[in-house]
Amino acid sequence: MSEHFELLLKDPQSSARRGRLKTLHGVIETPIFMPVGTQATVKGLTPAQIKEDVGAQIILGNTYHLNLRPGSELIRDAGGLHKFMGWDGPILTDSGGFQAFSLAKLSKLTEDGVAFQSHLDGSKVFLGPKEVMGIQANLGSDIAMVIDECPPYPCSKDACEKAIERTTRWAKACKQIATDNGFLESGHHVFGIAQGSEYEDMRRRSAEELSELDFPGYAIGGVSVGEPEPEMLKQVRATAPFLPEDKPRYTMGLGTPPQMLKMIAAGVDMFDCVLPSRVARNGAFFTPDGMKNIRNSRFTTDLNPLVEGMDNYTCRNFTRAYLRHLTMAKEMLSCTLLTLHNLHFYLDLMQQVRTHLETGDFSSWSSEWIARYEADGE
Amino acid sequence: MSEHFELLLKDPQSSARRGRLKTLHGVIETPIFMPVGTQATVKGLTPAQIKEDVGAQIILGNTYHLNLRPGSELIRDAGGLHKFMGWDGPILTDSGGFQAFSLAKLSKLTEDGVAFQSHLDGSKVFLGPKEVMGIQANLGSDIAMVIDECPPYPCSKDACEKAIERTTRWAKACKQIATDNGFLESGHHVFGIAQGSEYEDMRRRSAEELSELDFPGYAIGGVSVGEPEPEMLKQVRATAPFLPEDKPRYTMGLGTPPQMLKMIAAGVDMFDCVLPSRVARNGAFFTPDGMKNIRNSRFTTDLNPLVEGMDNYTCRNFTRAYLRHLTMAKEMLSCTLLTLHNLHFYLDLMQQVRTHLETGDFSSWSSEWIARYEADGE
Ligand SMILES: [Zn+2]
Ligand SMILES: [Zn+2]
Repeated sequence: MSEHFELLLKDPQSSARRGRLKTLHGVIETPIFMPVGTQATVKGLTPAQIKEDVGAQIILGNTYHLNLRPGSELIRDAGGLHKFMGWDGPILTDSGGFQAFSLAKLSKLTEDGVAFQSHLDGSKVFLGPKEVMGIQANLGSDIAMVIDECPPYPCSKDACEKAIERTTRWAKACKQIATDNGFLESGHHVFGIAQGSEYEDMRRRSAEELSELDFPGYAIGGVSVGEPEPEMLKQVRATAPFLPEDKPRYTMGLGTPPQMLKMIAAGVDMFDCVLPSRVARNGAFFTPDGMKNIRNSRFTTDLNPLVEGMDNYTCRNFTRAYLRHLTMAKEMLSCTLLTLHNLHFYLDLMQQVRTHLETGDFSSWSSEWIARYEADGE
Repeated sequence: MSEHFELLLKDPQSSARRGRLKTLHGVIETPIFMPVGTQATVKGLTPAQIKEDVGAQIILGNTYHLNLRPGSELIRDAGGLHKFMGWDGPILTDSGGFQAFSLAKLSKLTEDGVAFQSHLDGSKVFLGPKEVMGIQANLGSDIAMVIDECPPYPCSKDACEKAIERTTRWAKACKQIATDNGFLESGHHVFGIAQGSEYEDMRRRSAEELSELDFPGYAIGGVSVGEPEPEMLKQVRATAPFLPEDKPRYTMGLGTPPQMLKMIAAGVDMFDCVLPSRVARNGAFFTPDGMKNIRNSRFTTDLNPLVEGMDNYTCRNFTRAYLRHLTMAKEMLSCTLLTLHNLHFYLDLMQQVRTHLETGDFSSWSSEWIARYEADGE
């Protein structure tokens, strides 16, 4: 057992785990969902709302975005990302490599990293192990991610093998940098990222190579990149068993509530996703009976809360009729209140997961939860 | 002295007053500024933020907007505007007449009211004394405004006389309706509105005619409709002395901080204005040294709060550098945090006014405040 992650219990009916991860800014109970704060803000919410109303234990920051604007040196000079954005809980940052491909112009992969042009002003930027670890040190991330190569789906086995070799090499370089500059020693964590696309032998090889590097935690990468859900689950199941049991596991950019429950059953501990906040900006909200949209005219005179009995600021204080009015009138407060509800819904679901893992009925509860959610979704 | 308004003291050096207005949803210390909640929301802020962070004692709702969307019957059925929007403090609503002219299509004034087409869907709407009092009763306003005719600036004396005659007639009709339906008896207030454009004799006549109707409070109307500031002050000074001393006075849609201070010295007790929230959405923020814009590049690395030592959520937790970053990144949180600061700045200014009225140095303090504010504004 590593000193920063405690595996509290393993579910007898599935690969689900209940754990506890210590960071420099506090303890995280897993399984956990992490709200995304791309540009040093969880869109539409104050840090007070994220902590008190959403109940977040840890949030995510995006290295790609923060490096371009306002720049990691400015954030370092302001006392780090926590102080800059007024969030004193744990922060995980990605490496920026994935977004350098998906958002930037003219990305080019080399053996040393990714060269690209900023989507903001076209300026030339390069991200390799040295750069991503330096930026994340400037940010003061509690959990920094290594730079990896995420192959497209589908990809040839040859391309996949090159990607996992590069990924291992870069992971090694990142770990060395974080060791040399004292980042790890001072209590910050660095997570490795296992790749391997759809190839089970590649998945195993990548997981084993990274495990040897002994990272404080691991992401299962290259999922949720366009593959169908069964394929996604297959890849997680082909990776998790070859990662150290006593380290937290994280699937990046996932997912819907049922997807998260299925990933938890496959042994995943940590999630992040823009879905709950992004859909809120279009009027969608989560309920135990699926996702619904507040614009629907049947909510015009509905004086019930979004979810009856749910203990968040939005559900305690506002009716569906009011929230529909705000949304139809294009009022900013609609985004704030729906985002708050959706993120709290995700955090509350994780709380339920942890409770049912502790009471021992996670698998049956989870099946019932998914069945109800999918019976009546829109 | 009327039973709901207490005139606590009169400034010996000016016409400024310190008062206390009782409403069904709480007591208001005057002079006071009222944040504008046009569409059943103060743009970008939750009711909790309006109460705890801004420190608002009373907010404004707009009859024109709420009547068109979501409709006052829906709000009545939801338990009134307070319950609908989750704000339990006092609410003042305007009559909607002014906006029927400024926002709607094809407005037409008749002897009975204003006929117009909704700016939302073109539907035909009519607002007369019966309609505006009915809508405001549905909303459950603590302070309802009568419907009046606000003549354009400038206007001919003939047109002005017709406007004040109609204004008095409509005010009488509104008072009768609010008496007959028990609105006044149950503790809600109705304010009359004095007009008269730039003509001092018309101002006096309108004020005297309305005073005879014995309203719980009075607005000085037809100011801030395009006239220069000295003209605006002249009109207030030509009206206030002819309104009952023991009733609160309100200038609608005003103003900048110096304008409010000058109006207070002329005997005004209540203000509302979209300025502090509207400019926040463009990056502007208020300081004792004038209005500044956070987009200015000199704030890029500025690690000070918007206003040093100011006790609001924004100033306590965030730097100018962070707020500039949010604004440049077009993040919603920028609007929320700047709006919160600006509204708190206005409420804090009113608190300072009340304190200096009590210590007896309002006039000298006010002159110094204005001089500093105007020395370095942008
Ligand atoms: Zn801290
Ligand atoms: Zn109430």
